[in-house]
Amino acid sequence: MKAIIHIGLKSGVLDPQGRTIARSLSHLGFENVTAARQGKTIELELNNTDKTTAENEVKDMCEKLLANTVIEDYRFEIVD
Amino acid sequence: MKAIIHIGLKSGVLDPQGRTIARSLSHLGFENVTAARQGKTIELELNNTDKTTAENEVKDMCEKLLANTVIEDYRFEIVD
Repeated sequence: MKAIIHIGLKSGVLDPQGRTIARSLSHLGFENVTAARQGKTIELELNNTDKTTAENEVKDMCEKLLANTVIEDYRFEIVD
Repeated sequence: MKAIIHIGLKSGVLDPQGRTIARSLSHLGFENVTAARQGKTIELELNNTDKTTAENEVKDMCEKLLANTVIEDYRFEIVD
């Protein structure tokens, strides 16, 4: 089983990396870019056989280690 | 229009961040995690009106700035 976790800054939280990307793209001549935000993706290989247990565990992992829930949102999907 | 770009290390390229995540999760007691890989997601807001042009531009952005194509793979989707 595999978990794909997407973590990104909450809307409203300043994203300096995203700003830099948008500015750099504009300097390179890509003038259609109006904004950019950067997040991260974590793919986990899991030994679990039960999907519900896996979901609960991954939620726990996000809360305890992977995401900083003060400033970040996360969402994930479990795939076989 | 919006572009969602996923960038990750090519399979076979060592991913120290992923390893650290896997090890930390295991230390925290999540013993079902056997491997982890980390990638990044970039969301761009685009002024484009034509999807094909947008796709070509985003491909160009990935090749020129966003991805290091020697060690990274990218994929993207354009959404309205």
